[in-house]
Amino acid sequence: MHPEHTSVAIVGAGPAGLLLARLLHRAGVDTVVLEGRDREYIERRQRAGILEQATVDALREAGAGDRMDREGIPHDGIELRFDRRAHRVDFPALTGGRRVMVYAQTEVVKDLVALQLAEGGPLLFEAEVREVIGADTARPVVHYRHGGRDRTLGCDYVVGCDGFHGVVRNAVPDAVRSTYERVYPYSWLGILAEAPPVYDELIYAHSERGFALASMRSPQVGRLYLQVPNGTDPADWPDERVWDELDARFALDAEPGWKLRRGPITAKSVLPMRSHVTEPMRYGHVLLAGDAAHIVPPTGAKGLNLAAADVIVLARALTARYRDGSTALLDAYSDTCLRRVWRAEHFSYFMTTTLHTDPEQSAFDTRLQLSQLERLANSEHAAAELAENYTGLLISD
Amino acid sequence: MHPEHTSVAIVGAGPAGLLLARLLHRAGVDTVVLEGRDREYIERRQRAGILEQATVDALREAGAGDRMDREGIPHDGIELRFDRRAHRVDFPALTGGRRVMVYAQTEVVKDLVALQLAEGGPLLFEAEVREVIGADTARPVVHYRHGGRDRTLGCDYVVGCDGFHGVVRNAVPDAVRSTYERVYPYSWLGILAEAPPVYDELIYAHSERGFALASMRSPQVGRLYLQVPNGTDPADWPDERVWDELDARFALDAEPGWKLRRGPITAKSVLPMRSHVTEPMRYGHVLLAGDAAHIVPPTGAKGLNLAAADVIVLARALTARYRDGSTALLDAYSDTCLRRVWRAEHFSYFMTTTLHTDPEQSAFDTRLQLSQLERLANSEHAAAELAENYTGLLISD
Repeated sequence: MHPEHTSVAIVGAGPAGLLLARLLHRAGVDTVVLEGRDREYIERRQRAGILEQATVDALREAGAGDRMDREGIPHDGIELRFDRRAHRVDFPALTGGRRVMVYAQTEVVKDLVALQLAEGGPLLFEAEVREVIGADTARPVVHYRHGGRDRTLGCDYVVGCDGFHGVVRNAVPDAVRSTYERVYPYSWLGILAEAPPVYDELIYAHSERGFALASMRSPQVGRLYLQVPNGTDPADWPDERVWDELDARFALDAEPGWKLRRGPITAKSVLPMRSHVTEPMRYGHVLLAGDAAHIVPPTGAKGLNLAAADVIVLARALTARYRDGSTALLDAYSDTCLRRVWRAEHFSYFMTTTLHTDPEQSAFDTRLQLSQLERLANSEHAAAELAENYTGLLISD
Repeated sequence: MHPEHTSVAIVGAGPAGLLLARLLHRAGVDTVVLEGRDREYIERRQRAGILEQATVDALREAGAGDRMDREGIPHDGIELRFDRRAHRVDFPALTGGRRVMVYAQTEVVKDLVALQLAEGGPLLFEAEVREVIGADTARPVVHYRHGGRDRTLGCDYVVGCDGFHGVVRNAVPDAVRSTYERVYPYSWLGILAEAPPVYDELIYAHSERGFALASMRSPQVGRLYLQVPNGTDPADWPDERVWDELDARFALDAEPGWKLRRGPITAKSVLPMRSHVTEPMRYGHVLLAGDAAHIVPPTGAKGLNLAAADVIVLARALTARYRDGSTALLDAYSDTCLRRVWRAEHFSYFMTTTLHTDPEQSAFDTRLQLSQLERLANSEHAAAELAENYTGLLISD
């Protein structure tokens, strides 16, 4: 029940940690996953819902693709709304066939947890990691608390998949760690609604009233967002106000009757918008993946996909290490991932600042946003640049 | 000597006013050009030096292409330097054959002045326009001072080509005029050097020390720029310091010996960086063109080309008005031009903010710049988007 040693200790049972555990299990590498929360919590928390092709491929490779392939909804584009007009960005036409899949992160986590418990290595819930010792040695040790007792797990490598507030990152000494950060001057009010979306694809709206996004979790459940000021209390947004404001931001001159279908709002919360990168992503025998190393604002739908890309690279690197004794891929892990991370940070920044209204922006800045959006609607190269970034860099890129 | 009436009164003998006068002359439309400075002044002031294809075509059409075609230098690309590496952007390959021409604005002005004096309508130097009366009537009047006396010029249309500090813009009432503006937190120190450039194409450099640009006016004369703080006194930049700083900002890891060829610096000045747009560009019988309506920071090489594009559109509109009595093109003038203006404003902003170091920018912002520059070097769509914007929108776009 409490192994004292493993090859790879994985801290955190979000999609990054679980997917890494699955990929290593199939490669015959022993792992233990330690998760501080209980199972119900991690299977319920609302997160992203857009999977890039590479993420879809990795979930299938991990054996976790069956339900995704049945219930997930392939999307061939997004709609941009600005200046009260609608313009579609056609992903396959612009990228040589690439698309994305709508399948909620909560469902990904459920699928991976079920698989791991059925046939994987140990997965301990409510196992609170306190500290990682010996990051720069060949035998690091994870100190954690579980079932009311302090315990240790020795291993060859520790992977921190424990998110932005995780503790594994602290194993990297301050002297070698660089932090890059930006906090945006607005947040998202996100709702889940039991209302079948009247739109087939995501709608990203720039409006004088601020940004809005119409997304979905399933054909029956809408996921919608409104730009709101930082510090907004969801209690100030009764359901009718949310729907009215969404309709106002999505309004089209050509379709004055266009409205969302309303339904019971089952969740309502405020999400901050932040960019964060920690470098390097490896220190000795400690590796960071996903939100533990980098945060993006959600506008580009990149958070979950970056986490998946990290652990795909890492699974290959650890597999090579255990199969052939080669550490070349491990040595390249941080640089390999950071190239993609910075591309995604830039794209997420681009999407965020192009679509949101900064409370301090000038009329000149607003015109620049509209000129950029016009360009996306009228230039194939500009649209293709968005489509390539949105559908994601290939893992081999 | 002092005509009391003409069809089109053109205020300002910069490239916009002169090119408009030439195009209208060839279409048989009478003009008078009033210029506040003397001939020597306008033929000497240093401005831009990059002509888009559409500008080249218009100069040829105006009969002013001979010396440009002999002495101008076609450029097929630019070089980007960042992270101490060099990357070339190949314009014809990315745009289906488009290129630009290096030919100094001072030379364009000399060619157009000589033609206008030889065979055009009246061109009065040291004619200081004080006021335009009756913009919203069919018979506006230009009040100006020339040869020590106050004079008036009646006309059908007044075109303000009198630059950012011009007075024609004041004929548009405040109530209908909107102004959009951004002032950048840095300036350029520009030099002219009698030193044959060691580079064949313009070099745009992003560096930790700030932006630098290596341009040229001719095969013998270099034109180089350094980002400097606002308020910089050129006297604080002796020649050796300028050259040393240029070499430091253009430094390449792969070519540690790369240096500029030094020579006598014959001009040294500080240029502010500003974006400005006035809307609309037409009010009644007054039309604005070039810097009188819009300013861009020089990073995108768009100022002269936007001015040329304005007057090409305007010459067609006025020609139609006098040939057929049709005012449809005149009525569309402001909207037609502003689409291009905002595209150029956005591109100029993009080039400026991607390449310069804002004194307040964070390490995160610097990484975003480098990620954008990497993308320009590695994505055909991103590079093509730069190349299309740099070589210019076609007049028909």
